[in-house]
This record gives sequence, C-alpha cells and structure tokens, in this order.
Amino acid sequence: MSAAAPLLAKKLKVALLQLAAGANKAANLKKVEEYATQALSAHKDVDLIMLPECFNSPYAVEKFREYSEQIPQGETSQFLSALAKKLNVIIVGGSIPEIEGDKVYNTSLTFNASGKIIAKHRKVHLFDIDIPNGITFKESVTLSPGNKATSFQLPAFGQVGLGICYDIRFPELAAISARKNNAFAMLYPGAFNTTTGPLHWHLLARARAIDNEIFVVLCSPARDPDPSVYQAYGHSLVVDPYGKVIAEAGEGEEIVYCELDPELIPKVREGIPVTFQRRFDVYDDVGVTAKVSDL
Amino acid sequence: MSAAAPLLAKKLKVALLQLAAGANKAANLKKVEEYATQALSAHKDVDLIMLPECFNSPYAVEKFREYSEQIPQGETSQFLSALAKKLNVIIVGGSIPEIEGDKVYNTSLTFNASGKIIAKHRKVHLFDIDIPNGITFKESVTLSPGNKATSFQLPAFGQVGLGICYDIRFPELAAISARKNNAFAMLYPGAFNTTTGPLHWHLLARARAIDNEIFVVLCSPARDPDPSVYQAYGHSLVVDPYGKVIAEAGEGEEIVYCELDPELIPKVREGIPVTFQRRFDVYDDVGVTAKVSDL
Repeated sequence: MSAAAPLLAKKLKVALLQLAAGANKAANLKKVEEYATQALSAHKDVDLIMLPECFNSPYAVEKFREYSEQIPQGETSQFLSALAKKLNVIIVGGSIPEIEGDKVYNTSLTFNASGKIIAKHRKVHLFDIDIPNGITFKESVTLSPGNKATSFQLPAFGQVGLGICYDIRFPELAAISARKNNAFAMLYPGAFNTTTGPLHWHLLARARAIDNEIFVVLCSPARDPDPSVYQAYGHSLVVDPYGKVIAEAGEGEEIVYCELDPELIPKVREGIPVTFQRRFDVYDDVGVTAKVSDL
Repeated sequence: MSAAAPLLAKKLKVALLQLAAGANKAANLKKVEEYATQALSAHKDVDLIMLPECFNSPYAVEKFREYSEQIPQGETSQFLSALAKKLNVIIVGGSIPEIEGDKVYNTSLTFNASGKIIAKHRKVHLFDIDIPNGITFKESVTLSPGNKATSFQLPAFGQVGLGICYDIRFPELAAISARKNNAFAMLYPGAFNTTTGPLHWHLLARARAIDNEIFVVLCSPARDPDPSVYQAYGHSLVVDPYGKVIAEAGEGEEIVYCELDPELIPKVREGIPVTFQRRFDVYDDVGVTAKVSDL
C-alpha cells in the first residue's frame, strides 16, 4: 500500500479496560458496563473499547466449561451487543469461554457500534506451557483450538487482525493480517502472567509491530489481589509501528486511552521500507494459502 | 527436534571482535589479526571468532567497489583463511565487498579451523532506508543483492544460519534456518547506526531469538571517532533462546566473550513449546520452498 491509500483512514481513539474478573459473572459484566460508561464519559470521542482475555470468568482450566456460553444467544454476547449499541462504540470483547456442541473454545467477539457481531476469533494456539519454578498451565485440558486466522474491517477505519494471548507468540497471524489483508493493527486480548509477562510481553508486542510496521494493542486483565489465583501480568499496552510503547497500564484496574495516528504507518514504511523489500523469490510468503476469516 | 537430539552438540565459546574499519585496508586486516590473536591468548578455548560487517573497508556506498575483492582469490579471503588455520579457530568473517563479473556484493565468508571456506552469504536485503532527520543510505546504488538464505554446519557443534545486518529485519531467514535446517543460532554481522540502533538493534535480535527459540549473535563495527563517517551503533551482542541479552559490548573497540550453553534450547522449548505447537494447517510454513545454501 502507498501513502496515497492509508491503511488507517482516520485517527482511531481506543480505550483499554484493564479489569480483573472474579467468580461472579454478573459482577464481572456489571464492572465492564461501569468502566465502559466511564471511558465514554471521560472521552466522548472514544471509537473502540477493548476488553481483556476471559473478562467474564476466572482464568482457570477447570472453570472454562462452567462459564462457557453459546454465541450469539448467550448472556455475554447479548450483554456486549447491547452495550456497544447503547454507548455507540465498537467493542472488541476480549474473550469468553464459548461452547458449541461438546467443545469449549476461548473466543473473542467484536461488535460494531450498532451491536452487530463483526468478527469472531477462536484462540488458535492454546496456552500449554510448563516452566519449572515458573508456571504450568494447560488450556488444552478443557479447550479446543480455533482453526483460522482472523482479520476484519473496523467500520470507517480499516482492517485489523486479532489473536488471543498465546497466539501472539506465532508471528504468522500478524504477518497474514498485515500482508494479505492490509491490516493497520493487530489486537490481542491477553492474560500473560508474572513469569511470562516480564520475559516476553513487551518484546512480543514490539516484535509484531516492527516486523509488520503496524500498531499492536494488548489488553490484559488486572492483577488479582488474591495470590492463590492466576496472576495476570497487567501492563495493557499500545505499540506504534516503530515498535515504541505509546500507552501502558500498570498492574491494577484502570483504563488506558490512546490515539492511533493514521500518518504513522506510511511514515514508518517510507523510512524503513521493509514492507516493499521482501524477497519472495528467495522464501515463501506465509500468507499465500492461509485460512483467514472474520466470522 | 527433541531434547534427545540437541541442536547444539556442546558448549560453543565465541569471541566477537567489535572493531572500527578505516580507509587503510592493510591496517584493518592487521588489527583483525591482533585482536583475534589477543582473544585466543586470553581464552585459549575460544571456538569461534566473529567479525563485523565491512571490517576491511569503510561502510560507504561510494567505496564498496573500490574495496571489493574476488572470492576466494582476493587478499581478504586469503588472509582470513590463513588466520583461521594459524589460530585453529572457526572465523565468521563479518562481511566484505565482493566483486564477481561487474557486480559488487556485501558478502560474508565463514572459515573452518583448517582455513577452508564453509559458508558464503551475500546480503539478501540491501540497506535502502530514508529516515528524515535520521539517516539516508542506499546500498543498492552500488551493491547487488544475494539470492538465497544461508545455513551451514559449524563443525562439531551444529547448524547455524547467517544473515547480514538489514537481513535481520526479515524474519524469514531466521525462521528458515531454525525450522528447515534445525539451526541453534542465527549469526548477523551488522552495522546498525545511531538512528536505527537505539530503535531496533536489541529488539530485532531478541525477536529472532524468541520466535525461534535459538541463540542470536550480532557483531557490529565499533563507533568511529570521526563523526563525519558512518556512525556504527556498536553494542555487539549475544541473545539466548529466552530472548535475554547474555553478552553486550559498548560503543568502542572491544572483544566480547560468550558461551552458548547446549542445554538451554531444549529447556526453553520444553517450557514454552512454540516450536511444537505451530499450526501449519492454518497457515503456511515459510521454509517449504525456500532457497537455502551454504556456499
């Protein structure tokens, strides 16, 4: 794409709701509504609200099925649809445990400002790790993986890609969205933890940004004050196409506001034109036959 | 690969010679010999010596042809071959301007401890950038690009991949070496500068390391005291498969010593098993039809 056809059509104002989720689903949803309303009150021109991974349930293998819902008829889908419409804002709905048939997925829904679902991503790469003296977690014990990359049109702005948490460790999803769909940003609701967060949270976000010269937006749950439950890293952040962190949360509950500047991607790509210099005569383009979908 | 077949067969001890190159080629080569000899005197068990990009010539578009040599009959190829044999050490010969026919390339040679050339890489992605108020540089004015990724066997240790400087911005070369050739490390002689260095030098090295869970080794020229010439960033560094910087130079001339631990890759890959979890049913593997060669 040239500077004449900007990937991001106009400034995008985002608000990331870094919230902790407890055992009470109704209370979790009520908090989302309160914080979303607060964000729109503080900044009436917010275009997009983003929620964390598993914002309506505890992040725990043995809880995913209990908290799972059908999409779109489930309580949380209906709640987010109504909220987007009421606030007249795009909502990137973090993720929730979804049930379809007998299978449970970690699924992210995005709603336009009329409350319509415009994208659905099931986490493709399940979080199965085992770091001695660090953390062991096996999502695959109860979750099934999705089978496609996700890229979709944000109304009036442009194309974005979306992955969930551990998906960020696989460069393919971002490369596919950026190259095949001309995405201006990758969005990752994600709950890294106090072991993997300090190791790789910023590094992965910045790597995806500079390899593709796009924005990267990560929304984490807040750290839970109860040390006996999963300790999310926090540090929700926005990285620009230079790889610079331009907004970042701490560890507690808070709202991060940030503006994505449409002039930055052409500027970065003209200065360091890697997006034009790739050598597909020497190696393959990862996106050629990839499965990409919005719903 | 499993832990039972380690990618790195035994501990690899490297010495990076972060040297500045002036206009006098003979003096540049003499300095390489002095520092290499010093490294082997200080640490008799060094296995591999690595030199910076363009260690025998100024890093300047208008100088590449003047300093270019044929390979292997040219002065610098012969010098490095004799030095590797004399010191009984593997030499990753940074890069030199190479001439073949009418074309000039930015080329890296690796010599085994008997002085034999075991790998040759021509920079695939030429450094053509233009950052306003930062730096403008166009290697393609005088250089031609190489046409293959490079991966080769380090005798008694295992497979490594090699790229030159700007090649590091393209994740494909590292992914190909790691996935297709089971490389335990990527080596990049590279002369970033005082604009792109602070922006991306560490970030790119660490990104290549964690996306592939391999070591990454960067050897830069030292910063030239004369501010009128190209200002190399320095900061030669070694990154482990966790993405941690385990050795780093400053800006001046120095030798960086580092040991690459063979137990680290299996440990990292068992803890965060991304190398086993890729979803080639969802996206393509970048390495399938890539052109990879050692000479």
